[in-house]
Amino acid sequence: MANYLVTGAAGFIGSALAKDLILKGNTVVTIDNLSTGKESNIPTGCKFIKGNTYDKDIISKLDDYSFDAVFHIAGQSSGEISFENPIYDLSTNTASTLLLLEYCKKHGVKKFVYASSMSTYGDHEEELVDENSKTEPKSFYAVGKLASENYMRIFSSFGIQCTALRFFNVFGYGQNLDNLKQGMASIYLAMALKDGHIVVKGSKDRFRDFVHVKDVVSACELAITIPRDEKFDVFNVANCRKIKVEYIIKTIQSNIPGTTVEYILGTPGDQFGIYGKNDKIRHKLGWNPTINFEEGMKDFIEKTKTYFQN
Amino acid sequence: MANYLVTGAAGFIGSALAKDLILKGNTVVTIDNLSTGKESNIPTGCKFIKGNTYDKDIISKLDDYSFDAVFHIAGQSSGEISFENPIYDLSTNTASTLLLLEYCKKHGVKKFVYASSMSTYGDHEEELVDENSKTEPKSFYAVGKLASENYMRIFSSFGIQCTALRFFNVFGYGQNLDNLKQGMASIYLAMALKDGHIVVKGSKDRFRDFVHVKDVVSACELAITIPRDEKFDVFNVANCRKIKVEYIIKTIQSNIPGTTVEYILGTPGDQFGIYGKNDKIRHKLGWNPTINFEEGMKDFIEKTKTYFQN
Repeated sequence: MANYLVTGAAGFIGSALAKDLILKGNTVVTIDNLSTGKESNIPTGCKFIKGNTYDKDIISKLDDYSFDAVFHIAGQSSGEISFENPIYDLSTNTASTLLLLEYCKKHGVKKFVYASSMSTYGDHEEELVDENSKTEPKSFYAVGKLASENYMRIFSSFGIQCTALRFFNVFGYGQNLDNLKQGMASIYLAMALKDGHIVVKGSKDRFRDFVHVKDVVSACELAITIPRDEKFDVFNVANCRKIKVEYIIKTIQSNIPGTTVEYILGTPGDQFGIYGKNDKIRHKLGWNPTINFEEGMKDFIEKTKTYFQN
Repeated sequence: MANYLVTGAAGFIGSALAKDLILKGNTVVTIDNLSTGKESNIPTGCKFIKGNTYDKDIISKLDDYSFDAVFHIAGQSSGEISFENPIYDLSTNTASTLLLLEYCKKHGVKKFVYASSMSTYGDHEEELVDENSKTEPKSFYAVGKLASENYMRIFSSFGIQCTALRFFNVFGYGQNLDNLKQGMASIYLAMALKDGHIVVKGSKDRFRDFVHVKDVVSACELAITIPRDEKFDVFNVANCRKIKVEYIIKTIQSNIPGTTVEYILGTPGDQFGIYGKNDKIRHKLGWNPTINFEEGMKDFIEKTKTYFQN
């Protein structure tokens, strides 16, 4: 089978991807700084290097490995936190990409997949965005993600096939219920489980496009397995379905009866709402989302309902 | 009069701007790391802080000052060098912008002007670009400049009027004839003056849009003096004239008879050619280019013809 680097395997998406790759018989190495991820999330059998992906000394520890592909999933993932420490955000999300791409170039790694974000679009007139829509980042986090994509376009001209996956709102079991600054579904769910009361920062009419973590894992894997001529591609990883904040709350309430809700002022740089076309990834990679929001939330809630009782 | 920070006043554009602001009776402070600039370029009367603009300790030295505007002109300015040290490029051109914008936010500086670049456009079908044209950076340098603009758009929402000036090929007396990696006009001129022979990396049909450093200085000054409602603006600083490499050589040859020329392979990430519409800066800032390419080159050559004889 094959050898992969998956950065961020102590985090939500990285751990799910690493686990699946290992299950399929591959060898996986990860780098994670455990800043928000947990060591216990790193799947059994995954080789773990603790450190920052933007640290040259850490990257040099990869010199003895030979990878078939690099999945760069690690990175500070909160728009809100990017406002508190913009330089750290630029380091984890952008300098790291540059160092890993240089590593790929030096070591002949042929494929690079990057966890980009729907936040690169920012807010604009069109609610429904495709990969050619204008990008106007509203958070520092989004600026860094977009800069990483631009670096990838350049590195693709050096022979590395670079795929930027613009994840929309990734959700599902495995999401960190202790991080109240990242992940709309998990933030609200954590409040419901803990306090029976959800405090929403911002309007109930804001909306998101939710995509289940299992479907995100399959997008990552298809990005390196489906043959393509293009050396650089950007794909929306979206369900193309508009889900309002109000509906998220209702879905949680229907699974956890008695949950109350209150609306307060929003956070800076928060997007009002966009949802994504997914024709490109369907046609070019044969990707199909398999778990809808209602099923995914039901499963997530069932598996975590006693989380705060331990 | 007013107090300004002009980063990079040991360099070509920064020194010309600082000098003009001082001549007009203002107080100017500069930060420069002297990596390519020369201390002797810093105009008399300009307060000099030696160091990197991406160094928090250096920025904290500004805590006792109160500026009416910040002009961020410093930065590694060669597309070619950005390939040799991408992380340094990201630090000087992007992390620096972020730190200076944070400084402006913290200290209530109301205006921020940034030396952006025509390289943010990259190559595309349209040869003649305006500020709404697609941006597809081809060099790491250009990725960092574009990311800085995106940071500025966000900071403008915090009340700082941010102006990104996309400089096209800035040229003229004062350009560093010892740096053979930056500045098409000065590179060719240096070769002509030194060896009587010009080695061109790339096609003679490539073209550029040249803008004289004096006109660039006036664009910077207009950016803070002309009242505008918009908190964020991007302007081309261009002459809207296509000048081929071949014509640059001919212009030098007509001023320095006997100069020979040879064409070799190009450098990575070099743009084939774009030229810029300047309607926006003409209309909104009342800017008008005053020195054309032929006059500017004649003056530059006259003032430097004995440069390599000393």
